[in-house]
Amino acid sequence: MKNVMLLIALWIFSLPNLQAQEAIFRSQDLISPEMEDNKVTFRFYAPNAQKVEITGDFLPTEKIDSPMGKVDGPGKVTLIKNDKGIWEFKTETLAPELYSYSFLVDGLPALDPNNPFLIRDVASVTNIFIIGGAQADLYKVQQVPHGTVAKRWYPSEGLRMVRRLTIYTPPGYEQSTQSYPVLFLLHGAGGDEEAWMTLGRASQILDNLIAQGKAKPMIVVMPNGNVIQDGAPGEGSKGFYKPQFMIPQTMDGTYEAHFGEIIDFVEANYRVNKEKSQRAIAGLSMGGFHTLHISRFYPNAFDYVGLFSAAIMPRKDATGRVYKDIDATLEQQRDNGYQLYWIAIGETDFLYDANQEFIKKLDAMKMPYTYVETEGGHIWRNWRIYLSQFVPQLF
Amino acid sequence: MKNVMLLIALWIFSLPNLQAQEAIFRSQDLISPEMEDNKVTFRFYAPNAQKVEITGDFLPTEKIDSPMGKVDGPGKVTLIKNDKGIWEFKTETLAPELYSYSFLVDGLPALDPNNPFLIRDVASVTNIFIIGGAQADLYKVQQVPHGTVAKRWYPSEGLRMVRRLTIYTPPGYEQSTQSYPVLFLLHGAGGDEEAWMTLGRASQILDNLIAQGKAKPMIVVMPNGNVIQDGAPGEGSKGFYKPQFMIPQTMDGTYEAHFGEIIDFVEANYRVNKEKSQRAIAGLSMGGFHTLHISRFYPNAFDYVGLFSAAIMPRKDATGRVYKDIDATLEQQRDNGYQLYWIAIGETDFLYDANQEFIKKLDAMKMPYTYVETEGGHIWRNWRIYLSQFVPQLF
Repeated sequence: MKNVMLLIALWIFSLPNLQAQEAIFRSQDLISPEMEDNKVTFRFYAPNAQKVEITGDFLPTEKIDSPMGKVDGPGKVTLIKNDKGIWEFKTETLAPELYSYSFLVDGLPALDPNNPFLIRDVASVTNIFIIGGAQADLYKVQQVPHGTVAKRWYPSEGLRMVRRLTIYTPPGYEQSTQSYPVLFLLHGAGGDEEAWMTLGRASQILDNLIAQGKAKPMIVVMPNGNVIQDGAPGEGSKGFYKPQFMIPQTMDGTYEAHFGEIIDFVEANYRVNKEKSQRAIAGLSMGGFHTLHISRFYPNAFDYVGLFSAAIMPRKDATGRVYKDIDATLEQQRDNGYQLYWIAIGETDFLYDANQEFIKKLDAMKMPYTYVETEGGHIWRNWRIYLSQFVPQLF
Repeated sequence: MKNVMLLIALWIFSLPNLQAQEAIFRSQDLISPEMEDNKVTFRFYAPNAQKVEITGDFLPTEKIDSPMGKVDGPGKVTLIKNDKGIWEFKTETLAPELYSYSFLVDGLPALDPNNPFLIRDVASVTNIFIIGGAQADLYKVQQVPHGTVAKRWYPSEGLRMVRRLTIYTPPGYEQSTQSYPVLFLLHGAGGDEEAWMTLGRASQILDNLIAQGKAKPMIVVMPNGNVIQDGAPGEGSKGFYKPQFMIPQTMDGTYEAHFGEIIDFVEANYRVNKEKSQRAIAGLSMGGFHTLHISRFYPNAFDYVGLFSAAIMPRKDATGRVYKDIDATLEQQRDNGYQLYWIAIGETDFLYDANQEFIKKLDAMKMPYTYVETEGGHIWRNWRIYLSQFVPQLF
């Protein structure tokens, strides 16, 4: 009996799943994606499918239909089936980047069962891979000193809940007695306190820039900008539910008005240099909108401000007291002075025009800023690059 | 132009994906899983499929073929297609639990595109959902005080690398000056420093048991037991690669021999009560094997020892110095004394016989232990339950 049990054990242990007794046998036992010389081969086993396609941001965008005519959509390529029922596609040489992809099997979405590395963006999950080199080496876990990443909960009296945030403390923080500068880093609509860590590779970027001597050791605080949530979907008390893109109250001023609580919490609980010269704030899309408004609502709090593809646009629900006296508070912020007001936008971003208008406004006000225009649109690829460019300018 | 941009913006903002300009349109816009009175409806859109099945641990196991004949495998049920091409299956009332599932579309594995909550077990990814009530309420994020969960790196001189671990500090830790007891909690083969947090719901279980007054506030340290890794797949310097079940050197004594480094790191960096009476160790499967050997290799270090479905079996690679003098060190551990030596195993676990033999050995040695036998096999459901039962007995 003992030998039979051991044989069963060895057989089960040869399966790729510890839950072997109730295993869900999913693995196809292929290698996908396979990387060689920055070319990537994708494989998908589907002997009876009529068509297997792959779609992802490693492919050129294609024009797709929208209510306003053709707009840029994700590229798509059909894989070739071999005699074993395995569909395959090999890319040309890809530029360094973190890419995401998924398959379409006879038109239906399917994740790559051979790649367990996934990323959630709002309610969509895709597979990811990294082509190293250039800026993408910043997105990898390298053999350098690593900061600590903590998920911590802070009491918000204003929002009447205990809320979750992500906090990065740099390598050496725990052994040191010094106080550190702080960057508050805000997510976009549909994101949460997880987004900059997963989609944005923030801790890897910070670890690597600090190791290269290109960034000062700093604390990075990544709060949740959705004031009706206590934590990210699946991580808060609302449990598992399908995340939405636009969440009520995200751009009505509530978050900005209570942002001081987050600053207070961090300064009370971490060794933080509380001087304005040691405080930065930046955000992407909706987080850029929040950054704009927080930095002028607290007009003498931040010496460094970063708007990444900021969602600067008129909003019907922007009725909160935060949005009163926009011009006067911007002037106050200007007069108080700061080191850097950094605006970055992609040339095909749908918020491009809105950002140009904002810049004109700043020009008219003689409010200093640095403007960076890049290729591409409203995409995480740009936001990782913007973070990598912004952080070395801080403190 | 501005109005057109705004219209495009509104259209894009109505999509479920912020990467709209390069969006991968995956969402099927169904509700799945839908829960009502602890019955769950699953839905999958596949108008052209011949057959859509669902497999998961909410279904009774079925006999499947193996080299040793029929063994228990995951249950499977076929969904019914409606005239809109949506396949549907509604369960009977399910008992409280965290369940995992995936679909099979014409025999091919597919995740639920309407459920972004996923869990990785070795190289397999499945969707998850929770039916609340009873023990499963411990697995939910409740509105109770939350501990902090940090991913931190410790220097291992013995393994010559800086290694990642997960550390849970209980609610109030940061505001307190007291020293806390510590539980070292070890994963199984194919797991890593993520496993107890994701599959094991350890931080939720601790938060909830502490809030209910059933467990003492404690620190929980979840290291990585794969000595050739510096971090979990995708989180360490090896980057993204397909995780394996049995990793070289996981059960050759290297981990156990260097475990003191982890204890030292935690005690040097956290407010830890260093008395034996305030130190516990437990692990599942391979982690139970590690627990057995660590607790007798350091025979006066732990007053609480937990073997959850422990992989007690002869291993060819168990040649390390740690495995010398097993009986003598067990006797030493017995003579030094301890509060609890807790052994739990499921009645259909393939390690059941091995655990019975170990118990006979302990009986013969007059080494005290507490034995708990449960239904079920070598599955996470049991390990969550074992953790929930073990933790209230500590300190």
